[in-house]
Amino acid sequence: MDTNNPSTRRRDGDQRRRELCDAAIQVLAEHGSRGLSHGQVDRYADVPEGTTSYYFRTRAALLRGVGKRVAEIDLANLRSIVEHHVDPRVPFAHLAELTLMQADGPGLALNRARHELLLHTARDPELAEASAKVVNRTIALVQEAIAHLQPETTDTELLDAQTDAVATFITGVFTRLAGGDRTFTDPDRLACQLEAIVDAISKTMPGSGKAPGPD
Amino acid sequence: MDTNNPSTRRRDGDQRRRELCDAAIQVLAEHGSRGLSHGQVDRYADVPEGTTSYYFRTRAALLRGVGKRVAEIDLANLRSIVEHHVDPRVPFAHLAELTLMQADGPGLALNRARHELLLHTARDPELAEASAKVVNRTIALVQEAIAHLQPETTDTELLDAQTDAVATFITGVFTRLAGGDRTFTDPDRLACQLEAIVDAISKTMPGSGKAPGPD
Repeated sequence: MDTNNPSTRRRDGDQRRRELCDAAIQVLAEHGSRGLSHGQVDRYADVPEGTTSYYFRTRAALLRGVGKRVAEIDLANLRSIVEHHVDPRVPFAHLAELTLMQADGPGLALNRARHELLLHTARDPELAEASAKVVNRTIALVQEAIAHLQPETTDTELLDAQTDAVATFITGVFTRLAGGDRTFTDPDRLACQLEAIVDAISKTMPGSGKAPGPD
Repeated sequence: MDTNNPSTRRRDGDQRRRELCDAAIQVLAEHGSRGLSHGQVDRYADVPEGTTSYYFRTRAALLRGVGKRVAEIDLANLRSIVEHHVDPRVPFAHLAELTLMQADGPGLALNRARHELLLHTARDPELAEASAKVVNRTIALVQEAIAHLQPETTDTELLDAQTDAVATFITGVFTRLAGGDRTFTDPDRLACQLEAIVDAISKTMPGSGKAPGPD
């Protein structure tokens, strides 16, 4: 490997930053924000002492790096829905499976780290700003996914409302899983719940092309 | 006041513990678990240095005290639903209002402290056990509230499923509010969402006394 080539070095740097952030996700998940330090990330990443400090000078820089990495993984997951073939009998099956991947293993670590970061945003305006952008991009992708799962629905106001309800429900599942609640383990049941919510929202909207409920 | 009377002293001790826990909720909300220390709670509660250490010897004891206090407030709020007159035109109005009280002021502090504790449960088995009991009591009260809001529904399996969906959705609202998301400010809209979800769940259950959806 030619380590003197600047583009190789940059690529290596990006790869190294990703590895350090993956280790930091593990530290956050296991020890919380209180247990996160540059030295602890060095140990988890199995790199020489000082490596994390070299790539992320401050704690705030490290947390923003982790936020970026979490968003990168989340968005890739969501994109897989849009690229996935939809079985019209169980349109929400893949979304339900993706959601429940946050119940254990690397998914649970990601889930817990995301919650640590979320609580941190109130104390770091720069992280909050970056996080708000990520939330917007995530919501846009959820909306794209919901549109993809219901090809017959074109009403954007309805898609907005459905996206909002589904995003809130999935956030609730994530939070319950992050806290160790294991009531959610059945992807079929979750897929049914998600479909029911999407359906229910469409019935609360007048002129959505579906029969509105009684006044 | 007769401070030599043991029952007065005990009452004073309980009151003092509550005040310290209320201060600790404020500290957790503003500085996170990382910023929580006995000294910081003394300062927030405006009591002599060492008071918090006297009532809660360890950090773990303090966190468990806070967990108990958060549960006390949460359960009192939920009880108010069951004791509240239900307007059948907007059955979920009061639940929606209670939920949105977690958007700012003391409600937001409580909400953020609850999330800090939730993440902490994975690292403290005793806190996790206490928290699981609280979750069970909370879920039981949510179920009682949902039954109260739908006097015509007696199917307990259906009430279970509705409770689960509503608890998950409200958890999602709490999490979004804790992270600074201010999309949720309209209690009427939230009341409609909750009602739609309860309705939707009843339609996914065969033999629930409501017309099931198409197969």
